[in-house]
Amino acid sequence: MSKIKIDQRFSPYQMPCAIIGTIVEGNPNFMLCTWLSRVNRDPPIWMISINKRHYSMNGIKLNNHFSINFPSIELLMKMDYIGITSGKHKDKSSLFNLFYGETKVPMIMDCPLTIEVSVKDLIELSDHFIVLGTAINSFFDEKCQTSGVLDIKKMKPVIYTGVEKNQTYWSLGEKLGDAFKLGKDYKNPLKKKIKRLGN
Amino acid sequence: MSKIKIDQRFSPYQMPCAIIGTIVEGNPNFMLCTWLSRVNRDPPIWMISINKRHYSMNGIKLNNHFSINFPSIELLMKMDYIGITSGKHKDKSSLFNLFYGETKVPMIMDCPLTIEVSVKDLIELSDHFIVLGTAINSFFDEKCQTSGVLDIKKMKPVIYTGVEKNQTYWSLGEKLGDAFKLGKDYKNPLKKKIKRLGN
Repeated sequence: MSKIKIDQRFSPYQMPCAIIGTIVEGNPNFMLCTWLSRVNRDPPIWMISINKRHYSMNGIKLNNHFSINFPSIELLMKMDYIGITSGKHKDKSSLFNLFYGETKVPMIMDCPLTIEVSVKDLIELSDHFIVLGTAINSFFDEKCQTSGVLDIKKMKPVIYTGVEKNQTYWSLGEKLGDAFKLGKDYKNPLKKKIKRLGN
Repeated sequence: MSKIKIDQRFSPYQMPCAIIGTIVEGNPNFMLCTWLSRVNRDPPIWMISINKRHYSMNGIKLNNHFSINFPSIELLMKMDYIGITSGKHKDKSSLFNLFYGETKVPMIMDCPLTIEVSVKDLIELSDHFIVLGTAINSFFDEKCQTSGVLDIKKMKPVIYTGVEKNQTYWSLGEKLGDAFKLGKDYKNPLKKKIKRLGN
């Protein structure tokens, strides 16, 4: 294999797509976010990274709460609209059917998974803010269960990749295997030996 | 739609799978990481979140560098083995063909995308460390290009979801559309009106 160096500012990896819900100037507002992750197990802390210029930052700073809404494929068009439209210029408050938890942050009824988050800390970087927040409520859609268990396939989550001038949304593909089980053969030297002999 | 509250410690969303390369006690070591994200554009800063107990943390603290390696499906078994095996008990240094950039951190030849990272900051949470680092080099595999452009489909990235007792690896699915283009119809009220009339 031969390696090529690419511009370090590229990050051509598989990112989750989420819609961040905030209250800005008293009004529900929404932004697209692909730079986010869980960062602590208990308490359940999340981090989202937001460009400093984003309108949503005002709401997060003032209200100390936001929601993380994971849309399904059906919401793709609206999600992308949100990604190219600033709340400074367009009122996005009526795009979705909303529901509320313990706080005033708007949460999107049509998203199969929503996390209501209380801001814990802001870390200022050169062009982004890292926002750390604790999940105070998590909501999953009843329709996205199978036999009472959360079913990821029914969530139909959206994945984003940005490669040079090629920015793309993807669906989730096929199940490859069970995590933290597949690698057990490697752990067992005897099984490994038998496999080798079999080849 | 009806919402069910789930345990906030669950995070049943689509996470990227990466292998973190470190030097621990002079030896290459690897861990599986699904809690990671880009967090700043320029300079290109990444964050990874690592359980405090992980052996790799020692190497990150001492050597101030690590690598983020995005494996393809072919490496699934080894990646999972890494996820269930601590470097405290098993030497993982010979699992992969390695290459090196400007630092001593091991990078995995068979991974289509690798980022060499210099640690910028550590943020201590209750059970995890957030590690912030600046990308100093990014390597993409020549084979994963099409006509000189990075090709995500050829990367064959792995996605992880953890739902209750159901922890799963997935492939990337079908292309759904071009990001930051799909939503333009929503922006154009005339087009929207025509669409509505068409219904």
